[in-house]
Amino acid sequence: MSNNKDLREGILFVVSAPSGAGKSSLCRELIDSLPDLRQSVSFATRNMRQGEQCGVDYHFVEPEIFQEMIEHQQFAEWAEVHGNLYGTSLKTLSESADTGIDLLLDVDCQGAAQIKKNYQQGVFIFILPPDYAELEKRLRDRGTDSEEVILRRMKNAEQEISQALWYDYMVVNDDFQTARERLAAIVTAERCRSRHTMYLLEEFTAKGDK
Amino acid sequence: MSNNKDLREGILFVVSAPSGAGKSSLCRELIDSLPDLRQSVSFATRNMRQGEQCGVDYHFVEPEIFQEMIEHQQFAEWAEVHGNLYGTSLKTLSESADTGIDLLLDVDCQGAAQIKKNYQQGVFIFILPPDYAELEKRLRDRGTDSEEVILRRMKNAEQEISQALWYDYMVVNDDFQTARERLAAIVTAERCRSRHTMYLLEEFTAKGDK
Repeated sequence: MSNNKDLREGILFVVSAPSGAGKSSLCRELIDSLPDLRQSVSFATRNMRQGEQCGVDYHFVEPEIFQEMIEHQQFAEWAEVHGNLYGTSLKTLSESADTGIDLLLDVDCQGAAQIKKNYQQGVFIFILPPDYAELEKRLRDRGTDSEEVILRRMKNAEQEISQALWYDYMVVNDDFQTARERLAAIVTAERCRSRHTMYLLEEFTAKGDK
Repeated sequence: MSNNKDLREGILFVVSAPSGAGKSSLCRELIDSLPDLRQSVSFATRNMRQGEQCGVDYHFVEPEIFQEMIEHQQFAEWAEVHGNLYGTSLKTLSESADTGIDLLLDVDCQGAAQIKKNYQQGVFIFILPPDYAELEKRLRDRGTDSEEVILRRMKNAEQEISQALWYDYMVVNDDFQTARERLAAIVTAERCRSRHTMYLLEEFTAKGDK
């Protein structure tokens, strides 16, 4: 059952985690190992950086365009981060669903909650760090954040983990490979769920009628 | 997340398929490859065969005992097959759930429906043959059934496949290894579902309080 573009809707996988849980590396590995899964491309108003491509890393747009999209309720979720606007359009999600493409969307808890509310579809996966001590260690080991930023991230983590309750799945990123395998298993299993495999029965019946 | 016996309930996986879909081989492979998954042991009134062990292959009991169990509503499902009685006790299921043991139960559609009604828990997986032609081929290739039996099995398959609609998952057994991997993915994914991983949040909080 590869992505059967003619027969079933694409599935949206929404992945959230507190900063330092290893979400970005896990999502990258997952996309690399599952050819039928694509990273969702968000809209962004920040400047394109060296090596980035429009339509691949982000859909880079002017702030005025982004504001218009907000006004026309074209976003499943959006947020302002350090003065720039980022968002996932409803059209991106519905077009993928309609064409049978499975999408992976890496977004924070607020964004995930907006998607659940505005798009009302999706498989929601929360990645947990093994514990607070390990989370703090990982944030410190990065060597990129000040003490103040680390403490703020730890405080945010507490807040975000309290949101894990409403997600469909929880995966602990204790051992990276195990966590990656669990994420891949969730993708495989969701593709086998009856609401996505009803077409198998039609196909079966059609074959039986021949 | 191996079977965490102290922290989460065991999950019941119920697998059905029409005769010839390859269910028994798939279930055997799954049990062999996943050490944390156990085959559910049914009660049976038939005579023990050479090489069989009571409590391993079946709990062999006298018909009178079985009838008493029926009267006391101790079965999640039971059926008469060729004059013998077979059944899965509610106690087997609830004890495994309570002690965090994941069970695999290989049962026909009628049995699965009884479990859904009487036990109201479980992950229901339906295995589909690729199509009717392949199903017929597999039944003939066995070389064990008469033409009459084959035709009856084909008729039953049609009836059983119409039941697939209410199952949680559907897995096509086209390629054996792919089907086995999908079943294993379903087991792994279900273990990550939030209703089974809530304990991770408690553990997390407990660790954070230290």
